[in-house]
Amino acid sequence: MSQAYCTATYRCYDDKADFQKKALGIAVGLTVGSWTDLPEARKAEMEKHLGRVVSVTEHGGAEPGTRCADIVIAYPDVNFSRDLPALLVTVFGKLSMDGRIKLLDLGFSSDFLSAFPGPKFGMDGVREQLGVKERPLLMSIFKSVIGHDLPNLREQFYKQALGGVDLIKDDEILFENPLTPLRKRVEACMEAARQAEAETGQKLLYAVNLTGPTSKLASQAKLAIASGANALLFNVLAYGFDVLHELSADPEINVPIAAHPAMAGAFYPSPHYGIAAPLLLGKLMRLAGADLALFPSPYGSVVMPREENLAVQAALLDPALPVRMSFPVPSAGIHPGLVPLILRDFGTDVVVNAGGGIHGHPMGTAAGGQAFRQAIDATLRGVSLPEAAALPGNEALRAAIDSWGYKQP
Amino acid sequence: MSQAYCTATYRCYDDKADFQKKALGIAVGLTVGSWTDLPEARKAEMEKHLGRVVSVTEHGGAEPGTRCADIVIAYPDVNFSRDLPALLVTVFGKLSMDGRIKLLDLGFSSDFLSAFPGPKFGMDGVREQLGVKERPLLMSIFKSVIGHDLPNLREQFYKQALGGVDLIKDDEILFENPLTPLRKRVEACMEAARQAEAETGQKLLYAVNLTGPTSKLASQAKLAIASGANALLFNVLAYGFDVLHELSADPEINVPIAAHPAMAGAFYPSPHYGIAAPLLLGKLMRLAGADLALFPSPYGSVVMPREENLAVQAALLDPALPVRMSFPVPSAGIHPGLVPLILRDFGTDVVVNAGGGIHGHPMGTAAGGQAFRQAIDATLRGVSLPEAAALPGNEALRAAIDSWGYKQP
Repeated sequence: MSQAYCTATYRCYDDKADFQKKALGIAVGLTVGSWTDLPEARKAEMEKHLGRVVSVTEHGGAEPGTRCADIVIAYPDVNFSRDLPALLVTVFGKLSMDGRIKLLDLGFSSDFLSAFPGPKFGMDGVREQLGVKERPLLMSIFKSVIGHDLPNLREQFYKQALGGVDLIKDDEILFENPLTPLRKRVEACMEAARQAEAETGQKLLYAVNLTGPTSKLASQAKLAIASGANALLFNVLAYGFDVLHELSADPEINVPIAAHPAMAGAFYPSPHYGIAAPLLLGKLMRLAGADLALFPSPYGSVVMPREENLAVQAALLDPALPVRMSFPVPSAGIHPGLVPLILRDFGTDVVVNAGGGIHGHPMGTAAGGQAFRQAIDATLRGVSLPEAAALPGNEALRAAIDSWGYKQP
Repeated sequence: MSQAYCTATYRCYDDKADFQKKALGIAVGLTVGSWTDLPEARKAEMEKHLGRVVSVTEHGGAEPGTRCADIVIAYPDVNFSRDLPALLVTVFGKLSMDGRIKLLDLGFSSDFLSAFPGPKFGMDGVREQLGVKERPLLMSIFKSVIGHDLPNLREQFYKQALGGVDLIKDDEILFENPLTPLRKRVEACMEAARQAEAETGQKLLYAVNLTGPTSKLASQAKLAIASGANALLFNVLAYGFDVLHELSADPEINVPIAAHPAMAGAFYPSPHYGIAAPLLLGKLMRLAGADLALFPSPYGSVVMPREENLAVQAALLDPALPVRMSFPVPSAGIHPGLVPLILRDFGTDVVVNAGGGIHGHPMGTAAGGQAFRQAIDATLRGVSLPEAAALPGNEALRAAIDSWGYKQP
């Protein structure tokens, strides 16, 4: 193929279909519409618009309802504009409604990719801002935010910050509200951050939740930044990937953006329908410009199978995609005793995202952060958690393990 | 409840769960975060932010994996801003990833609704623009658009228009492109529309596909309108409901918007996950401002079960929602022989959306439109299609029935 194509990989389930024929139907139907009945002269003109079947791989088939095939189709770039809505509507607009079919992956041409600067900071940029080169980062979430006033939020923020966390994020369900409006919330929390930094000597990023009408998001982001915000949280799937893309490409929005997976469960968990998690929460979030990408961890109550998790991580870090890497943030159900497991699964390039594991600590919120940092330091040094917990100074870790136990892989 | 609440209805599948407990967990977890351990004084302050369990209805349970419950939760309006991303993230952000759970319905408080003007024209406004009060409308789609130049598209448009269709829509996969750029496409097609109108005496709407970067959609829409477009087609789910809401609420975008269901199959078909079609393609499209709402018909290749279809229709026309009604447009796989079925299922307030059924007509495209109009007129008069096809002047209908058959309900 001398011209540029983007590819889509689908998993189709059908007990009766001729998958080769189905693949050809997709390649023609979603591009030129019809082919075999075109006059030869017209075919020559239309060839550059015609989709191609790259491969059809059948598998399964033992039980009824399990016969399926992975189909890869190449779509000529000339057919769509250089934006994600156009690509997604082309490859999975009508087709998403055509029987049991799931979009597994997308491949992008260099030309298509050239429209996507990707994350402005990415993993390395976030590390640089925090001055933390090697170890996993620690993120903390407010215990509860709805119905709390500014002094309360500020106090929660300060206590979390004291424990040595690197990032604090808003709850994704905290919207513009009279008690803690964006500008005042940022001012109060960033003041708490400076106060904590004076004590701990440690920088931190506060990802404030970017919400409201789509057309006002960029100006809200700039208002947050002007008020001192040094990071943003964004519910990407409630707005669309293109909105993240435009925000991250805006030169005035010069802080890292953390992509929240809210609504993702409407897309990825079904084997038969939707969009696979590594594409939805990995590749597309990264291409659209997420500096940090949150996704359900395999450890907590909101679960995703471990192999799917690692595939999301792989997409966020895949060196083949020529944009900065997104920092993987497996989230939910994490306490200090799980740190060895997280580091085994994700290595050191991971943000340990703790919620209840910090606020529920028996010695208090600051001790919650300390317990995580102690667990991370011990694991990096090859010291088991029970050993580390017995060391003087590691009382916070000891209390956490007494409360929640631990898993040594 | 003296304060305002929006409600969400979920279907949860779980063979072991205590559904009452699960419901309470949702109501508390997605609002105030924790409740039972709050001091009494704090409870009094937080009560107005607390979610409420409205009902828990268990059903199923005979076979493993079939035990399920419909849970209705009321969420205090005070917790979220008056926009769909905020409501959706509140009720189905994190929860969408929490096991097998599907969002079935939403109920809106009057206060929440007050932020939504709904469709600017709606079904009655579209009828008014076309001067057609009673009968079902007929919509036609280009046969193929990718790789076609302006004269070709103009010619396709003209032939469709000659057959007496009321609306012609772009293909949803036609993006900004050098062969048929938006402005020139609108000019060429609207000129063809005027030419056809001079012959048929019939008005028609041309829904041009609104595409490109999110922040440019409003200006693209205005460019299209300035170029003569009298309707827009929009791939809502590739951009988000809030974008449709903002477009439809823009006073300068003073033409009907047809909402295309592209990508909807990533959300609605699974019984266990996602968002139910009547909510996704019905209630939310209407609230966000769709004047016409397309959805997969129960007749064609891209199918949706009939009862689900009728539930989509019901949501588009439900008199309880205090915004204009959206014109229901069941789409795909429709030929003239299905018209009696469509009218039985949908009544006269329906747009018969014909694609291949017009272009594939043995006597040509114009005859294709005529055949549909003849089928509609006969059915409204209570004449069966074979009877009508035998009448002089109805050659187009006869040829259509000879080609594709018919179904008399």
